[in-house]
Amino acid sequence: MKLSDVAEAIGLDYTGDGSIDITGVASIDDAARGNIVFLADPARKAELTTSKASAFILPEGISCEGKPYISTNKPLLVFTEVVRLFYPKPKPRGVDARAIIEEGVSLGTDLSIFPNVHIGKGAEIGDRVTLYPGVYIGPACKVGEGTTLYANVVINEGTTIGKRVIIHGGTVLGSDGYGYVWDGSCHRKVPQVGGVIIGDDVEIGANCTVDRATLGSTIINRGAKIDNLVMIAHNCTVGKDTLIVSQSGLAGSARLGNNVIIAGQVGVAGHLTVGDGAIIGPKSGVTKDVESGAKVTGYPPQPHREWMRIQNAIQKLPQMRKDLQGLLDKMDKLETEDA
Amino acid sequence: MKLSDVAEAIGLDYTGDGSIDITGVASIDDAARGNIVFLADPARKAELTTSKASAFILPEGISCEGKPYISTNKPLLVFTEVVRLFYPKPKPRGVDARAIIEEGVSLGTDLSIFPNVHIGKGAEIGDRVTLYPGVYIGPACKVGEGTTLYANVVINEGTTIGKRVIIHGGTVLGSDGYGYVWDGSCHRKVPQVGGVIIGDDVEIGANCTVDRATLGSTIINRGAKIDNLVMIAHNCTVGKDTLIVSQSGLAGSARLGNNVIIAGQVGVAGHLTVGDGAIIGPKSGVTKDVESGAKVTGYPPQPHREWMRIQNAIQKLPQMRKDLQGLLDKMDKLETEDA
Amino acid sequence: MKLSDVAEAIGLDYTGDGSIDITGVASIDDAARGNIVFLADPARKAELTTSKASAFILPEGISCEGKPYISTNKPLLVFTEVVRLFYPKPKPRGVDARAIIEEGVSLGTDLSIFPNVHIGKGAEIGDRVTLYPGVYIGPACKVGEGTTLYANVVINEGTTIGKRVIIHGGTVLGSDGYGYVWDGSCHRKVPQVGGVIIGDDVEIGANCTVDRATLGSTIINRGAKIDNLVMIAHNCTVGKDTLIVSQSGLAGSARLGNNVIIAGQVGVAGHLTVGDGAIIGPKSGVTKDVESGAKVTGYPPQPHREWMRIQNAIQKLPQMRKDLQGLLDKMDKLETEDA
Repeated sequence: MKLSDVAEAIGLDYTGDGSIDITGVASIDDAARGNIVFLADPARKAELTTSKASAFILPEGISCEGKPYISTNKPLLVFTEVVRLFYPKPKPRGVDARAIIEEGVSLGTDLSIFPNVHIGKGAEIGDRVTLYPGVYIGPACKVGEGTTLYANVVINEGTTIGKRVIIHGGTVLGSDGYGYVWDGSCHRKVPQVGGVIIGDDVEIGANCTVDRATLGSTIINRGAKIDNLVMIAHNCTVGKDTLIVSQSGLAGSARLGNNVIIAGQVGVAGHLTVGDGAIIGPKSGVTKDVESGAKVTGYPPQPHREWMRIQNAIQKLPQMRKDLQGLLDKMDKLETEDA
Repeated sequence: MKLSDVAEAIGLDYTGDGSIDITGVASIDDAARGNIVFLADPARKAELTTSKASAFILPEGISCEGKPYISTNKPLLVFTEVVRLFYPKPKPRGVDARAIIEEGVSLGTDLSIFPNVHIGKGAEIGDRVTLYPGVYIGPACKVGEGTTLYANVVINEGTTIGKRVIIHGGTVLGSDGYGYVWDGSCHRKVPQVGGVIIGDDVEIGANCTVDRATLGSTIINRGAKIDNLVMIAHNCTVGKDTLIVSQSGLAGSARLGNNVIIAGQVGVAGHLTVGDGAIIGPKSGVTKDVESGAKVTGYPPQPHREWMRIQNAIQKLPQMRKDLQGLLDKMDKLETEDA
Repeated sequence: MKLSDVAEAIGLDYTGDGSIDITGVASIDDAARGNIVFLADPARKAELTTSKASAFILPEGISCEGKPYISTNKPLLVFTEVVRLFYPKPKPRGVDARAIIEEGVSLGTDLSIFPNVHIGKGAEIGDRVTLYPGVYIGPACKVGEGTTLYANVVINEGTTIGKRVIIHGGTVLGSDGYGYVWDGSCHRKVPQVGGVIIGDDVEIGANCTVDRATLGSTIINRGAKIDNLVMIAHNCTVGKDTLIVSQSGLAGSARLGNNVIIAGQVGVAGHLTVGDGAIIGPKSGVTKDVESGAKVTGYPPQPHREWMRIQNAIQKLPQMRKDLQGLLDKMDKLETEDA
């Protein structure tokens, strides 16, 4: 592919020699001849001249002497499109005869179903779905078109997954919610007979868990993106386009609004609501509702700036203790002198 | 099923028209005609009249005009029994010919062993066990009667699992404990040759890990209930009926007593003991033994009320700093005036 | 095996009767007749006489009346070697006909490849590799000689794994990094087309996740040891012989040096560097670079001793508040009197 082809494919102009061959994308650190490189950090502009890359994608206002480039005010988006040119989606491999498909399953077209996939009774698999080896789809599940489930993903009975969803290896959907009632001598299991609904364009990382609802549904809405090792408990709702970073957990019936950002290793207590657009800082413990648009951190959560002030003060605590003791001593002395 | 049948099956009386058809259970939010609904929160009593549900399970002292109901002083337990009526356990599906069963395996009766299950040499599988696709049972394991292992559960060699145990998808039992000894040039692995013992009626959530002991056994005793993504390290002991909530972890040789509650995202350091009935609040870091019956939170853990006081004080820290500085200034001034 | 055989096999002398039979190793708590026991804790020396063990491995300077023993100044290392005598590596079982091996795969010798393993196109599997049931190896992966992948491990396309690596059940390598760009209406996925490289002698626990790089590689260097449920994000580097304890997570492009120790439930923010030999205490939140050799704890991290001082002061906060209020009142009174 020539640079001019790349530029044409993504609908942008280029500056310099368009006839050079582009054989792949690379980071500025690893670039070899033939690579096109996206300059993510303008501060590294000086490296353009020493890089072995053959061409660049540059933020508007930055140019490169001696090598061709594509200018854009959305460099990361353009980079995304260029990468797709060099990593086209593989052709569907069909339905492998060694996959286990139980009775009453409905299968779409252009599927990639690997050996050792198991699809339970009455499940519906849409067009262009890819199921890697070891995927288990329980009875009566629905998997929307264009969805990809990586190896060893477990989708338990009755789960509904939308279109263009991506779920990474080892993630489990529809495990039982954690609910018990003490009967006087032991914890009796509360049956978990609700479901899980995953909206279109959701992505869920590796080794996550999303529990089924006790009754009703645990819901992850359209466009939400969830990182690895995240726990979503029974009857939670995650709003549209909400981001949940790695190793965070939502307790039962927590509700996240749309466009929320939950940073890493956060816990959200049960039955709480986090409003639209709220941002929860890393390692927070959310113990009360969070208002829409709020930016909070800590356990319990504080407005982020207040949390910073508090953390700053905490580091001064040993000195504060000394100062306070000094004052107490002086006051004692003053009082003694007075007496 | 008529309401009178439901009431008879659980051995309780009903009030109102017992001849109405009950076709399923639902939450008060989702109820449709034909549903029986359990009112979990008495504060929502007013919704009984507007609900589409056909009948209710109500705490004693609450009644419903115009619709039949079952009264009980244990509504959640009764709800649990009613749900079981509508979700009977499926019949055993037998041992699928595509399951891999190595030599010397002993198999009970009324089994449900799915395709692509692997049972290693000499393992013993009790009656009425269900093994979902992708389950791996290593050599010489024992799985007690009535136990269910969901898809892609890994039970490594020599693990013993009791009766009526439930283990959710992706959980790994009997992985090696994390033990190394520095030999001067690298971390040499300490062989982990102990086992894992899971008592009767234990439930373990999805994508948990329970390491085998170095020597001896990692033990989870009867009736303990463990949520998703929990880590139990080598040589730990978890007491009877103890609860461990999601994303918590026990370091090596930690010992939890009976009826302990460990909330979410807690860490317990190695070789510590948490006494019977102790409660550890969310996100705590347990760095010293906890007495029986204690209710602690924090890192290091404090009595819960003291922790609340401390958290409250922390939020006042920026103001305290200002006040302290004000006092220091005034004292300086006093001293200067004196001098 | 006689005690004299054991001693000879590990190249050490013994004291006492070398002709006794040794049938296995055990901990001092579980030891039965025929066992050799390693005394880990010299404080428990008194138990040697009451133990049922037949022989001991003892730190130099400790002796045992009446029973034979092996003395060493490296008791844990010696124990490690003795255990290996009693748990020899099983013979290779060969390549099971029910494993799925796609075209162009290169297979070494002395393999143990179980049924239901899946090896993708063009993968290279070295000599003496063991792949347990349910392991998925994507296309173009390399697995070095002597490596063991436990059941249901997922190795996605293009991952390179060194020699003598051990990866425990359910761990996922090469899942996509968590990267999106907001295009004005939704989070557009940034393609993750880099790889994962695992060095020789690395061990990774159960249910971990190691994401592939966006471009370039996520790298875990030789001899690093990673516990269960750990998250390594895209483009991270983990140094040689570095230890990462359970449930910790590294955000994107974090760089750990050699011989670092990351305790449990730690989070390291993106693009940070932790220098060689640094030690990060449990539950820390690393929000800035950590210097080589530093020992830090907390969120944000403090030098460990300072953190201890701060934690100590925090517990005194409620009293400090009272004292401060007392001083404020007295000062008010003084000022009023003055006026």
